[in-house]
Amino acid sequence: MLDRLKEAVLKANQALPKHGLVTFTWGNASGIDREKGLVVIKPSGVSYEALSPDDLVVVDLDGNVVEGKLKPSSDTPTHLVLYKAFPQIGGIVHTHSPWATSWAQAGRGIPALGTTHADYFYGEIPCTRKMTTAEIEGAYERETGHVIIETFRQLDPLQVPGVLVHGHAPFTWGKDPHSAVYHAVVLEEVAKMAARTYSLNPEAKPMEQTLLDRHFLRKHGENAYYGQ
Amino acid sequence: MLDRLKEAVLKANQALPKHGLVTFTWGNASGIDREKGLVVIKPSGVSYEALSPDDLVVVDLDGNVVEGKLKPSSDTPTHLVLYKAFPQIGGIVHTHSPWATSWAQAGRGIPALGTTHADYFYGEIPCTRKMTTAEIEGAYERETGHVIIETFRQLDPLQVPGVLVHGHAPFTWGKDPHSAVYHAVVLEEVAKMAARTYSLNPEAKPMEQTLLDRHFLRKHGENAYYGQ
Amino acid sequence: MLDRLKEAVLKANQALPKHGLVTFTWGNASGIDREKGLVVIKPSGVSYEALSPDDLVVVDLDGNVVEGKLKPSSDTPTHLVLYKAFPQIGGIVHTHSPWATSWAQAGRGIPALGTTHADYFYGEIPCTRKMTTAEIEGAYERETGHVIIETFRQLDPLQVPGVLVHGHAPFTWGKDPHSAVYHAVVLEEVAKMAARTYSLNPEAKPMEQTLLDRHFLRKHGENAYYGQ
Amino acid sequence: MLDRLKEAVLKANQALPKHGLVTFTWGNASGIDREKGLVVIKPSGVSYEALSPDDLVVVDLDGNVVEGKLKPSSDTPTHLVLYKAFPQIGGIVHTHSPWATSWAQAGRGIPALGTTHADYFYGEIPCTRKMTTAEIEGAYERETGHVIIETFRQLDPLQVPGVLVHGHAPFTWGKDPHSAVYHAVVLEEVAKMAARTYSLNPEAKPMEQTLLDRHFLRKHGENAYYGQ
Repeated sequence: MLDRLKEAVLKANQALPKHGLVTFTWGNASGIDREKGLVVIKPSGVSYEALSPDDLVVVDLDGNVVEGKLKPSSDTPTHLVLYKAFPQIGGIVHTHSPWATSWAQAGRGIPALGTTHADYFYGEIPCTRKMTTAEIEGAYERETGHVIIETFRQLDPLQVPGVLVHGHAPFTWGKDPHSAVYHAVVLEEVAKMAARTYSLNPEAKPMEQTLLDRHFLRKHGENAYYGQ
Repeated sequence: MLDRLKEAVLKANQALPKHGLVTFTWGNASGIDREKGLVVIKPSGVSYEALSPDDLVVVDLDGNVVEGKLKPSSDTPTHLVLYKAFPQIGGIVHTHSPWATSWAQAGRGIPALGTTHADYFYGEIPCTRKMTTAEIEGAYERETGHVIIETFRQLDPLQVPGVLVHGHAPFTWGKDPHSAVYHAVVLEEVAKMAARTYSLNPEAKPMEQTLLDRHFLRKHGENAYYGQ
Repeated sequence: MLDRLKEAVLKANQALPKHGLVTFTWGNASGIDREKGLVVIKPSGVSYEALSPDDLVVVDLDGNVVEGKLKPSSDTPTHLVLYKAFPQIGGIVHTHSPWATSWAQAGRGIPALGTTHADYFYGEIPCTRKMTTAEIEGAYERETGHVIIETFRQLDPLQVPGVLVHGHAPFTWGKDPHSAVYHAVVLEEVAKMAARTYSLNPEAKPMEQTLLDRHFLRKHGENAYYGQ
Repeated sequence: MLDRLKEAVLKANQALPKHGLVTFTWGNASGIDREKGLVVIKPSGVSYEALSPDDLVVVDLDGNVVEGKLKPSSDTPTHLVLYKAFPQIGGIVHTHSPWATSWAQAGRGIPALGTTHADYFYGEIPCTRKMTTAEIEGAYERETGHVIIETFRQLDPLQVPGVLVHGHAPFTWGKDPHSAVYHAVVLEEVAKMAARTYSLNPEAKPMEQTLLDRHFLRKHGENAYYGQ
């Protein structure tokens, strides 16, 4: 069942250490089959090297385990909330990649300071508000998803395919698991360069809208002209 | 004698360069057999690549060499003081990993700024006071252990499994040598992200107690629900 | 056709990830045959590992594809403008290497702070002015070339073989594609050290002209005495 | 002739890229046979991978080439001045390693901020004064040696086995070429940690003399007790 999706989710998880985004087991990737309403996700606390397709866990959108012997990632409720709220997306990645996490700990969104950012994120990568005591003591992982959705009320999740959870770390997504990994790599690279930019010029300003438009639309939408 | 412990201590020492925590021979790992009251530790100044199980040194808790042809690590007295004071621990690691060492040189403890920290350290990772001239000129390595114990008077060493020795470098520990290495990696990662967080936001504050509780207790204690 | 040039351009493109200058497909190298007036350049959005000589695209100086099945890099118009304006150069490289890009995002040129810089760049590595709305909304990639040329009105492009495009990233060049890659590596290294120098000493000043002369001329021109 | 010394110098040069101290050909190692008064040094501008024992150049203390088909490093006159002034040393290394070079560009010596430093450098690693126009325009490489010697008038070169040349980069040395490489690695590590320490605590002070004594003398001199 879901063999192709499992293969894609397996590859996405294995790509996380390859790109230097995770230490130990601090990250997870998932993918969704929209027709069947089923999500494939990494099991909790299992190392990427040891992972086989059979280790992956299949859950429905209410979080019931449909297939798999292992417990799914403890972040599964966050993934499910995002899949339900963002019907355009097909894959999600969560990591504690160090530069993005430093911005999350600083409680700051990452402004679009250059064209590397603009090529993939159509404006600032936002940081959520702090979660309340009730949210933390309640269904914490589900509430993490809700605070992300609240942050995206005015945003298209495919135009800004990632977020920083305040005091925690980033989540990214995309049309499939591969694309979610891709955006996790871009976010980490952009977070690093933005930190260094402010160190060189504390007064650095977000780029002009025209340049942001030019670069984002060069790669996205019907008038895109990048790639083959 | 102590074959399984030697194997664990050997692996722990070999893991230090693999995780990028040591340059040359600047670090050592040990483990204890509580029943026998014997400690297995790295020999002094021997490279990790060249290390075989027979090179490891077995000492009793008074520092007498019980087995082994080589001299034990010059930091052995520090390890022994910690094993005697912290009966809960089974392994200790000392490194000069660069980010943690920079905090030690700055004389600052590392506040809990995010959930990566909270997942493994239940609050600030403390920095000891400076050692006195008498301590430095006396039984220096043993006194290093004593100043660590003094720092932990109000702390549970399994809830805060590491420390920064002022002007020197970190020590970490855990229930066994593997766990001590694990905490050394976490400490270095957390030290790096905390430094960058303050660079991005000099007013960054430690996280709320509720979030600290949620993350630490998600992975530790009887209500833990992370992993398999 | 152009077999040797293709080989050189292929090697130059493959060298970009090897030197840690590019993430994914964020960079491209080209070379020119001045007699034939033809340029060989990387195809758009193709990964470096997958690249074969046949994938490279041959264009004339007006941008017409003369050979190749793939679309040339979207930055091709920038390369062509530079080849036309700088007849001394034989290869061009564009990357988003992180340190140089951080300077570009900060909108600052990199002053010559030490002899590493002086060995290859005869003075400050300039940053262009911001592009205007008309330039961005017009023939953007061609205008990127024009704003570089404007920056070099008083400069010899072989004495200062690179530039930072404001809010974007670096371009470097040289007598051939290999040399353009070499200068891209030097630029990234110099950008890193200059950022750290200012962090250690915010009042750091550009080096004296005599020392700049000594080092640049030790490696360049008729009195050079470095190498075999 | 000098087969063992050549082997040591070859290994020392090959160790430079292995330890991440050099980009391209930006560094060189040499060794001296004190009885014969002959120095073996890297040829100028040759890559480390391509280096064979026969490529090494043998020069006398006046700089005359005694053996070898290639031109010696352009920094040879600096090495020779140091060998003549410091009879205790047997090997010298020059690199542009990025952290140490950043301190050199900032024109600052590196204070002893922690025990990693104290284990190998018995106090501040000094930065030379700027060279004068006459020195730069004269026998530049020889004068570079002279300005280093001037900096060491009150220092024992085996107690402080390295220096930062103002606006240039580091030189390190030791009893043999291997030891000079070792000190180059320590210097780079110490330079990195000192920069981060000041970033975390701009008021950080050099360590107490008693702690400096304890650590340096634990590894050096007749009362050393580190290693086998």
